[in-house]
Amino acid sequence: MPKKLNIGLVGYGFMGRTHSNAYRKVNNFFELDYHPVLKAVSGRNAEGVKKFADQWGYESTESDWRKIIDRKDIDAVDICTPNNLHKEIAIAAAQAGKMILCEKPLSMDTKEGEEMVAAIEKAGVANTVWYNYRRAPAVTMAKQLIDEGRLGRIFHYRANFLQDWTINADLPQGGTALWRLDAAAAGSGVTGDLLAHCIDTALWLNGSITTVNAMTETFVKERMHNLTGKMEQVKIDDACTFFCRFGNGSLGLFESTRYARGHKALYTLEVNGEKASLKWDLHDLHRLQWFDHKDEGRLRGWRSIHVSDGDQPYMKNWWVPGLQIGYEHTFIHQVADFLKAIQEGKPCPPTFRDALETQKVCDAVLSSAKEEGSVKKV
Amino acid sequence: MPKKLNIGLVGYGFMGRTHSNAYRKVNNFFELDYHPVLKAVSGRNAEGVKKFADQWGYESTESDWRKIIDRKDIDAVDICTPNNLHKEIAIAAAQAGKMILCEKPLSMDTKEGEEMVAAIEKAGVANTVWYNYRRAPAVTMAKQLIDEGRLGRIFHYRANFLQDWTINADLPQGGTALWRLDAAAAGSGVTGDLLAHCIDTALWLNGSITTVNAMTETFVKERMHNLTGKMEQVKIDDACTFFCRFGNGSLGLFESTRYARGHKALYTLEVNGEKASLKWDLHDLHRLQWFDHKDEGRLRGWRSIHVSDGDQPYMKNWWVPGLQIGYEHTFIHQVADFLKAIQEGKPCPPTFRDALETQKVCDAVLSSAKEEGSVKKV
Amino acid sequence: MPKKLNIGLVGYGFMGRTHSNAYRKVNNFFELDYHPVLKAVSGRNAEGVKKFADQWGYESTESDWRKIIDRKDIDAVDICTPNNLHKEIAIAAAQAGKMILCEKPLSMDTKEGEEMVAAIEKAGVANTVWYNYRRAPAVTMAKQLIDEGRLGRIFHYRANFLQDWTINADLPQGGTALWRLDAAAAGSGVTGDLLAHCIDTALWLNGSITTVNAMTETFVKERMHNLTGKMEQVKIDDACTFFCRFGNGSLGLFESTRYARGHKALYTLEVNGEKASLKWDLHDLHRLQWFDHKDEGRLRGWRSIHVSDGDQPYMKNWWVPGLQIGYEHTFIHQVADFLKAIQEGKPCPPTFRDALETQKVCDAVLSSAKEEGSVKKV
Amino acid sequence: MPKKLNIGLVGYGFMGRTHSNAYRKVNNFFELDYHPVLKAVSGRNAEGVKKFADQWGYESTESDWRKIIDRKDIDAVDICTPNNLHKEIAIAAAQAGKMILCEKPLSMDTKEGEEMVAAIEKAGVANTVWYNYRRAPAVTMAKQLIDEGRLGRIFHYRANFLQDWTINADLPQGGTALWRLDAAAAGSGVTGDLLAHCIDTALWLNGSITTVNAMTETFVKERMHNLTGKMEQVKIDDACTFFCRFGNGSLGLFESTRYARGHKALYTLEVNGEKASLKWDLHDLHRLQWFDHKDEGRLRGWRSIHVSDGDQPYMKNWWVPGLQIGYEHTFIHQVADFLKAIQEGKPCPPTFRDALETQKVCDAVLSSAKEEGSVKKV
Repeated sequence: MPKKLNIGLVGYGFMGRTHSNAYRKVNNFFELDYHPVLKAVSGRNAEGVKKFADQWGYESTESDWRKIIDRKDIDAVDICTPNNLHKEIAIAAAQAGKMILCEKPLSMDTKEGEEMVAAIEKAGVANTVWYNYRRAPAVTMAKQLIDEGRLGRIFHYRANFLQDWTINADLPQGGTALWRLDAAAAGSGVTGDLLAHCIDTALWLNGSITTVNAMTETFVKERMHNLTGKMEQVKIDDACTFFCRFGNGSLGLFESTRYARGHKALYTLEVNGEKASLKWDLHDLHRLQWFDHKDEGRLRGWRSIHVSDGDQPYMKNWWVPGLQIGYEHTFIHQVADFLKAIQEGKPCPPTFRDALETQKVCDAVLSSAKEEGSVKKV
Repeated sequence: MPKKLNIGLVGYGFMGRTHSNAYRKVNNFFELDYHPVLKAVSGRNAEGVKKFADQWGYESTESDWRKIIDRKDIDAVDICTPNNLHKEIAIAAAQAGKMILCEKPLSMDTKEGEEMVAAIEKAGVANTVWYNYRRAPAVTMAKQLIDEGRLGRIFHYRANFLQDWTINADLPQGGTALWRLDAAAAGSGVTGDLLAHCIDTALWLNGSITTVNAMTETFVKERMHNLTGKMEQVKIDDACTFFCRFGNGSLGLFESTRYARGHKALYTLEVNGEKASLKWDLHDLHRLQWFDHKDEGRLRGWRSIHVSDGDQPYMKNWWVPGLQIGYEHTFIHQVADFLKAIQEGKPCPPTFRDALETQKVCDAVLSSAKEEGSVKKV
Repeated sequence: MPKKLNIGLVGYGFMGRTHSNAYRKVNNFFELDYHPVLKAVSGRNAEGVKKFADQWGYESTESDWRKIIDRKDIDAVDICTPNNLHKEIAIAAAQAGKMILCEKPLSMDTKEGEEMVAAIEKAGVANTVWYNYRRAPAVTMAKQLIDEGRLGRIFHYRANFLQDWTINADLPQGGTALWRLDAAAAGSGVTGDLLAHCIDTALWLNGSITTVNAMTETFVKERMHNLTGKMEQVKIDDACTFFCRFGNGSLGLFESTRYARGHKALYTLEVNGEKASLKWDLHDLHRLQWFDHKDEGRLRGWRSIHVSDGDQPYMKNWWVPGLQIGYEHTFIHQVADFLKAIQEGKPCPPTFRDALETQKVCDAVLSSAKEEGSVKKV
Repeated sequence: MPKKLNIGLVGYGFMGRTHSNAYRKVNNFFELDYHPVLKAVSGRNAEGVKKFADQWGYESTESDWRKIIDRKDIDAVDICTPNNLHKEIAIAAAQAGKMILCEKPLSMDTKEGEEMVAAIEKAGVANTVWYNYRRAPAVTMAKQLIDEGRLGRIFHYRANFLQDWTINADLPQGGTALWRLDAAAAGSGVTGDLLAHCIDTALWLNGSITTVNAMTETFVKERMHNLTGKMEQVKIDDACTFFCRFGNGSLGLFESTRYARGHKALYTLEVNGEKASLKWDLHDLHRLQWFDHKDEGRLRGWRSIHVSDGDQPYMKNWWVPGLQIGYEHTFIHQVADFLKAIQEGKPCPPTFRDALETQKVCDAVLSSAKEEGSVKKV
């Protein structure tokens, strides 16, 4: 008999949808002891939360996240709120002994993150942070290849996350839809929203970052604020670039912006090693580019691997070779791994502690950018 | 209050999974009056069908498809069996007044198909055939562009469906897993399995085919048969190529094989018109290639359109620009359209009658190939 | 001391330029005993031929090709005229004991071609036909790979040559610039102009073709004729498609058209073998796509090989890895091979006899198309 | 009658070949008053220089570059030596009133460059520096598009130049072939050799750079020195990364390395503007990627423009649409432009003065890297 895992979802925006979908599908495709149950969802707008609950089959709704935490029938709290609420909710949930699945970035800054890690580790509850791109099968395969030593010594790691949705200066900031442009709710701009993804993957694939040098820019200096109705200074970073050194001696280069016309969600990463190199691109997430120097000389070339085969990570659970999966499956994989981890009593990375490392890099980046390019230790 | 539509699934193989997934997800993403209910699934292997029912949440199981048809609580029968059973089940279901969703190809041949169409139209039941690739958003957008006249007069239509999974001569034929290699169960080889997809899309995008000239080949002449345990002649077509003329004066070129090393499920189509051209490739199904001659001369080039934006077909129901969907979503779209169609009392193409046209082309192709390349009217 | 090879060029259109460039450059990049000398060029327009001679450094001009053949100081005659003059010039040149380099297609039809081969073989003169694409380094490498047995048994060969330059119905036919649209000068349309290239490469890479089934179409039925000034019937084939069987048991599929909007000179070829497959595309002629089934399973993918390395055909004579060559270099390679062949007393393929095989396939294709799709032996 | 321009080439290595080829071909393809004559080539190895002269048709040889400068019959001196000789030769040539074509980078450092500019401007001689990539037709078209305002305000400029040829630690430094690894001959590593190209194009396309922050690394610390026969410290930069600000407010990001396994000469650049973006890649130098936001919404996508059409820069002088040119043509274009410039009495950019700006950026980059990431004004 499957064990039920009762989920309480806090926040029901875009991420609320991706997570709900993951909970609903995971047991159709993965054989697991635990079966998530969509027990409750909370949100301040009663009508909105009701509609969401109906659409996704949540058994109940709450208008205050504290109710979710108080409820005895909730096993795990899933935090999908703007960043400025993560800390309070996570600590309360930990103190109530709930498992926690928290959206990224972990926190507004390192200090908050440290408090959260302290609370959660004290409580000893299962936890994970939704850095979902680790579990794109092509990215997971990249991890396997690196861990197997197939790249040899690593020389370079580069990643960028390019978007273009805020070029229009008439776009306001703040409120439900646009809190990502409001520093009070988001903490930072592309650094926490986009580069955090790149950093999380980088730390996972290539180990620790020791120093960073960064530059940021805010191209549109003022935007109408949805909550105040007035033009207000934009305090987030519209663009952020940094180079860094990794503990393994390799060099890193990262860039993110929301002003790269023509790119919607272009998260790319590339790793150059002594023996081999690999590249990945979120816009075609089912492919991994692979170059292997040990291929016969005249036949060397970048391979475009269609990651849809049963011997590639997660893919035996899906369809047949040649048939691709998409963005939403990265979340399903994380839920599958989380359920397996609690079944086995193991952590499900990235844990809060892992995500804190990403937070530290973000903080160093933002700090370096304040005195443009100054070297900061992580 | 949503209206329930009770589904009875016959067969629970690969297609049983894709359909079940579609029924389970459709109402999370599309606002529709009808909500499918996974009422029953039938299959001859009691253990297998039970496991499948548990995994997908079917309320009950049956060991004989006739039970499904007899049950009063079933509204719609979904036929996922090998091709040689389609006719009997469909006609019985029609006679019982059930709606029918039938896997492709419609039938073993045109004669069977005509009987099925007669029965279903006599019964007046809602019906559709799972030519799912019409509903890849990029393909649906191709349809829009053609219908808007953006390509002008069409000169060329070409499509192919290339796989490589039967190159190994040790692969047996027949039985549950490999019925596609057994002419008695499948009717034909790549013609009915793969070219039928290409033909369905072609008829939809480019209108009727009037004449065909075809060539087929069976590269591996004998394979062990799973049911008899003996080496037996392979009677399906391993590869099929044909050229044709369309009613609109354009030329067509089609090819399919399971012996194209390196291609897993490479279904590509290209349409060349006077004013514009387009291309699509199942291996990257979220992209449409588009060339528009009215672009300024020196800046003309093929555009790679990432079909993930809200103004592109079906995509407002999914995620945000740049985040791709995958293979399974084509089935969800067909269920969404089917539910909407019955809500509005309209047909959901491709209907059995539409699919019969594809069957006629397939028959003409196989007939032409018998006297290599002889011209056959459709 | 280098030996001089005095060239007499007949015709000075587009191909006159590509050949002249090849003669002028070959000794800068290839160490060879023979050095071509641009001795004379002939053409009916005195002013035009003078200008061409000045631009390219020809020592003299003639207004009649017969003069070229009569001159004792000419070693080799290069035929760059419209197709309908090839035979007469080639036979005269052979009888005069000149070496001959003839543009493709060899002749207007097989009968002409046979007369040419008889004459040239009787004369025993060195000869070659300018099917230049064999000598794109990526194509030459494809030949190596096939000859080394790396593809194993071949199942499929497919090629197409797609252009779009005659879609405009106002384009006239005939005369100097547009003789390719005039059947009297060209013999056929895309079959002789474009498919002949595809067939030459196919015969070279995959051996003989035994039977063909073809379809042709002329989309624009009448065009103004430049020579008569009147609207006249277009007698060439605007598009041609055929499938065929090769002597080695593989299936072939060929298509050409000048009505594929968006394609300028898209000559692609693909070969699918038991063990490996390869693809090539003239629009990126410095790349070879390669799929090798013996690559480790999860890492299999199509490699995009940048053919610019010293261990790849012809490339040690050019630049350094990563730096591409272009279209014109295919002609330089052919001149280099021709010079080396005469140095060694060996034939330089494709010889007239080789090119006659292509002519036979073209004739069979055109004949099959007359009774749409009828099977024709080559 | 054409005017002769007598060329004296100093150095006959790789660049000597590319330039000689350009001089020999330019008048076949471009109508120009001036015709270069390969008058003399100098080099210290008498046998080597003789062989080179024979291969390329130089009329005479010299063993000392001073002889070239002394000769009255030399109009223009082309400097193809290692970087450490540029200054002395250029200043001597200027003082002798010769026109000068100098390989890049201009000089070992800014100070040298300033002396060279002073000398050349005092002498008032025609001059240009071989930053050849400006004249890849796709890059020249990028310049046109930017100058026409089609990108609008520029937000981002990024470029990299990635190679992998020095990963092998057994590769020695110094001497004729490997002077690029010897700081005494090259001045710097990838900064002067590769990033200088990226910087030159960037300054041309996007205007001045105001500040830089850089990081460099030398992965292989010691290599055998060809001249001393001993293991010696490697003093060049193996890799260099920097970010910067442009005078127009846009952000720049540059990277170069010779340790990016799988990349041979991957020079890519991308410019993101408010209205449009473009990308280019030396590995497919005949293509420009173009995204135009004013394209209709659902049809927006990156266009891959095959730059081979007569209305694209330089291309009317070459073949027909679809047929690509290659690396060597960038040099031919520069010679054509140089000859036209002297005909018209205009400068041929990049002049020495233009190239000095690139030198200043390089110096600022190397200076910033010394105190990792410190901000340096240019």
